[in-house]
Amino acid sequence: MPQVAIFMGSKSDESTVRPCADVLEKLGISCTFTITSAHRTPERTSRLIKELEEDGVQVFICAAGLAAHLAGAVAAKTVRPVLGIPISASSLGGWDALLATVQMPPGFPVGTLALDKVGARNAAWLAAQILALHDPELTKRILEERRKMIEQVEEDAKTL
Amino acid sequence: MPQVAIFMGSKSDESTVRPCADVLEKLGISCTFTITSAHRTPERTSRLIKELEEDGVQVFICAAGLAAHLAGAVAAKTVRPVLGIPISASSLGGWDALLATVQMPPGFPVGTLALDKVGARNAAWLAAQILALHDPELTKRILEERRKMIEQVEEDAKTL
Amino acid sequence: MPQVAIFMGSKSDESTVRPCADVLEKLGISCTFTITSAHRTPERTSRLIKELEEDGVQVFICAAGLAAHLAGAVAAKTVRPVLGIPISASSLGGWDALLATVQMPPGFPVGTLALDKVGARNAAWLAAQILALHDPELTKRILEERRKMIEQVEEDAKTL
Amino acid sequence: MPQVAIFMGSKSDESTVRPCADVLEKLGISCTFTITSAHRTPERTSRLIKELEEDGVQVFICAAGLAAHLAGAVAAKTVRPVLGIPISASSLGGWDALLATVQMPPGFPVGTLALDKVGARNAAWLAAQILALHDPELTKRILEERRKMIEQVEEDAKTL
Amino acid sequence: MPQVAIFMGSKSDESTVRPCADVLEKLGISCTFTITSAHRTPERTSRLIKELEEDGVQVFICAAGLAAHLAGAVAAKTVRPVLGIPISASSLGGWDALLATVQMPPGFPVGTLALDKVGARNAAWLAAQILALHDPELTKRILEERRKMIEQVEEDAKTL
Amino acid sequence: MPQVAIFMGSKSDESTVRPCADVLEKLGISCTFTITSAHRTPERTSRLIKELEEDGVQVFICAAGLAAHLAGAVAAKTVRPVLGIPISASSLGGWDALLATVQMPPGFPVGTLALDKVGARNAAWLAAQILALHDPELTKRILEERRKMIEQVEEDAKTL
Amino acid sequence: MPQVAIFMGSKSDESTVRPCADVLEKLGISCTFTITSAHRTPERTSRLIKELEEDGVQVFICAAGLAAHLAGAVAAKTVRPVLGIPISASSLGGWDALLATVQMPPGFPVGTLALDKVGARNAAWLAAQILALHDPELTKRILEERRKMIEQVEEDAKTL
Amino acid sequence: MPQVAIFMGSKSDESTVRPCADVLEKLGISCTFTITSAHRTPERTSRLIKELEEDGVQVFICAAGLAAHLAGAVAAKTVRPVLGIPISASSLGGWDALLATVQMPPGFPVGTLALDKVGARNAAWLAAQILALHDPELTKRILEERRKMIEQVEEDAKTL
Repeated sequence: MPQVAIFMGSKSDESTVRPCADVLEKLGISCTFTITSAHRTPERTSRLIKELEEDGVQVFICAAGLAAHLAGAVAAKTVRPVLGIPISASSLGGWDALLATVQMPPGFPVGTLALDKVGARNAAWLAAQILALHDPELTKRILEERRKMIEQVEEDAKTL
Repeated sequence: MPQVAIFMGSKSDESTVRPCADVLEKLGISCTFTITSAHRTPERTSRLIKELEEDGVQVFICAAGLAAHLAGAVAAKTVRPVLGIPISASSLGGWDALLATVQMPPGFPVGTLALDKVGARNAAWLAAQILALHDPELTKRILEERRKMIEQVEEDAKTL
Repeated sequence: MPQVAIFMGSKSDESTVRPCADVLEKLGISCTFTITSAHRTPERTSRLIKELEEDGVQVFICAAGLAAHLAGAVAAKTVRPVLGIPISASSLGGWDALLATVQMPPGFPVGTLALDKVGARNAAWLAAQILALHDPELTKRILEERRKMIEQVEEDAKTL
Repeated sequence: MPQVAIFMGSKSDESTVRPCADVLEKLGISCTFTITSAHRTPERTSRLIKELEEDGVQVFICAAGLAAHLAGAVAAKTVRPVLGIPISASSLGGWDALLATVQMPPGFPVGTLALDKVGARNAAWLAAQILALHDPELTKRILEERRKMIEQVEEDAKTL
Repeated sequence: MPQVAIFMGSKSDESTVRPCADVLEKLGISCTFTITSAHRTPERTSRLIKELEEDGVQVFICAAGLAAHLAGAVAAKTVRPVLGIPISASSLGGWDALLATVQMPPGFPVGTLALDKVGARNAAWLAAQILALHDPELTKRILEERRKMIEQVEEDAKTL
Repeated sequence: MPQVAIFMGSKSDESTVRPCADVLEKLGISCTFTITSAHRTPERTSRLIKELEEDGVQVFICAAGLAAHLAGAVAAKTVRPVLGIPISASSLGGWDALLATVQMPPGFPVGTLALDKVGARNAAWLAAQILALHDPELTKRILEERRKMIEQVEEDAKTL
Repeated sequence: MPQVAIFMGSKSDESTVRPCADVLEKLGISCTFTITSAHRTPERTSRLIKELEEDGVQVFICAAGLAAHLAGAVAAKTVRPVLGIPISASSLGGWDALLATVQMPPGFPVGTLALDKVGARNAAWLAAQILALHDPELTKRILEERRKMIEQVEEDAKTL
Repeated sequence: MPQVAIFMGSKSDESTVRPCADVLEKLGISCTFTITSAHRTPERTSRLIKELEEDGVQVFICAAGLAAHLAGAVAAKTVRPVLGIPISASSLGGWDALLATVQMPPGFPVGTLALDKVGARNAAWLAAQILALHDPELTKRILEERRKMIEQVEEDAKTL
């Protein structure tokens, strides 16, 4: 049973969003990863939210570019936390997706992460931190990964 | 029976959007003007679109600020033309609403006008031009209004 | 007899604008596609508008980059709907063309779409939706294409 | 015992951040609200995080303007979820705070909300949604508030 | 007989553009100051250019806001130098007018000055410098004004 | 004897600025093309201005990137017209050079053209238009080139 | 004998820049505060730099708006450290001054601080930190001021 | 014993930051160059600052991308001068790093240089100018390098 659902608005976003699933997997968090669109498939989006909530999904992660409405559309249909990954998919460098994701009106928050792959990874980390509030083992794994990051900095420093 | 529906996302946008209705009225176009939200009232939005389409509405005009998803949400639910008025409602000066309105993905266009009151007026003008394609009397009224604008420039020039 | 005219400001925009004609063709809408410039050939632009209006063109689509005045110049000469495709053609990523297209003054609207190829396709979609107001067969074709988009999302989702 | 801690970087942000505490209170969530600075008081910030974690704080909300490092500094010291409210506090309209909050590097996410008061309220809503994952009563209160928002839209619509 | 023509797109720009005429007057340069619009009155604009060229106008100065096409439209109709003053007239702070004025395509230059009143004054200065190429007395007056500016700095410095 | 001087701030700008000299040559305008820097060689810059003025240079064209001060530094030292070509030379896409060139304070105008090669060509065109005020043959050549541009549009249109 | 020189480009910047002098005074650092302009008074600027260097000035602080060249012009004339305060003085919110100050070419650095009053204060702090490298008493005063800032945060926190 | 410490936030920044060390070396200034992160290794960062201060480091140079907090975090822990190099490391072109570095709050200045390699070199130059205040030999070397830059401009000019 997935704990986290990752939605992306278009198949073309796959390689950008994949690191999100990779981080969740590394942390031992089950997730489902699919494509659905705020505009092309609003019914599919609503149906998936309902089904996934019943399956026990705790956190929704939505990645989209351009006028990135997907996270907002999901936020309108669930009270579970929604996290947004803005994708740079036009000549505007992702400003469009960033603003369309973060500037949500009162009552319908989208916890927005950085653009593109960095944001994809951080959406996974934040989802993990949310789930870890009630999962001490997961907390340990997150702390263990942070320890590895510290070691990595020290390793990298030696290579200079 | 209204030919044009004006939706705005929040009562606080009323004074900005009102000139849209004023221009439509001046041109003799019946319209309905209401509040509905992409996020707070998605069902209301869907229901209104359906009812208004049945009532004969030809053009939908949507005004919203911040991560302005309203026009996009309407565009996902109708194949009648949707026009968008971005509202500047944050410290970002309307960049958020402009990009969230104009950068729609393929297949779900929002014909976007200028920000705020200028855009409100121009959404009415563009709706009128669309309706005028099959309404020669309306075409005449639009041309008559353009003639008045020309005269106004000449009048204004005399005051310098 | 063309129903839609596509103008672009420069031959260098051709590959970006071509998808506009492709979508119109897919929907069975006749169009004419030519080059004319607001600055280099204002007389040609005026003459083309007049001739094309007489030929029955209902919607003008204009694509231009930099200080993209073409759509505005056309909007000044016709009361038929004018749609604008901003092209990113400088180091500024298209901000120049987007603002020069969308921020039109009152009375001379340009229904602005997204930048570049996405906007080219959406200008065709919006033109089609305008024409479909009086063409039930075209409405059906638009709805059919939307159905295919839904299926495409579901197909894409299976490939993950 | 507070479930949520709200940190702001400067007393001058108080009126902007206050709505965050108001929403939490309305939802029956206990919170602590204090001032601490990433730069002026890094030790105080670290000590507060440690004490508040021991007191049971589940979510940290950080509001700051300019080169808004507070949320990031907190994210570096805890694995509990950190939410960020960018404050517009310079002539740049908040772009500085937005980017300094949202563009966090991998492993240290800040779930970023909208600028200023809208973001303050939404940080509270997102914190509530996180806490509600294990609190069915809170879920009910959130849903009840959403119902009121729907009614408010309908009420507002009647006043037009 | 005027040497410089100042066009502005709207009467609402008058107080912003007025300093342009004031500087020209201070330098003893005759000018004409009128309102004409690229979109509302393209014929009037063309006619004025033709008449003013015949009257001996050497430099055209155009001030406009939003999608500021006026200077470009004039540049398309004359080979005399055209200078542009972008006006900040929307929530975007004048980025729209600046880009729509400066990013002209090859062959149709607009010498663009700063936004608003500073640009209005500098359009006059640059027009004067152009005219001074063949007017040694005007060169002296410009140099004399520059001397006064130097003295003003020294005067101002004493007041600190 | 050169009529126009082209200064660029760095050898790395050469290929971007070269079209400026090409257009001048095509129009039969003599020019000098050199490198000088506002910051590295302020004395050289001052000396060149003085020498070139004595040699009869009428218009100075300055191209620079980053915090593009070259045009402004030249404008401070001459009352002959100064035109600026902003060069995109950093990750900011030329916004830095554009603003540093166009936003000059009162009394020291820089007539700013578009970014990069388009601006390089247009600086030459504007210089030519300035010189043509007292050179009817040059006016004819400019008009002739404009005629060729019109023909080119018509030629290009046939290739579609 | 002043240790720090503060230059501002225009008397209108005085109230914005004054906090710079106030911080220096609080820290017991002697300074001189005057007006000089990169464009209006380049000779005065050069002369002041030379005189002040001879008087023992160690750090130059320059504040300017628009195409803020003052700090860069000073950096071209001295090898003592130059710090820049960008001033927001147009409708662009200070982006112009920020970029014109910070994006200096190699070899001529301007250590740029925040916009407006915050930057004015921080230019003083950074100048003090530079001087403190060889002034242990000044180091103590800086540390003492930092201690007061910590106390102020704690005081402010009690008022909530 | 190093006089300058260069910190960068990530090994991926190495090639961008390397020119900083190169310039310092050319000027005969000893430096240490390492990796440390505001978020991943805050303790390492604090420890390094303390150790390096004891070793006699006079100036800290920090390079980071995204929400570039490294320079600010260092500025919070030392009263020695801190210089910042913003790195463009996302689709936003470095606006994120620039603003997160330069817009520091009062009392904790970061002297910010240009983006990327230009800024890396200029951070070295500014550090050298600071050190040169008490090192006449270093002043001579800086002046000698400036002389070479002048010669380089003259050499480059000959190649045109």
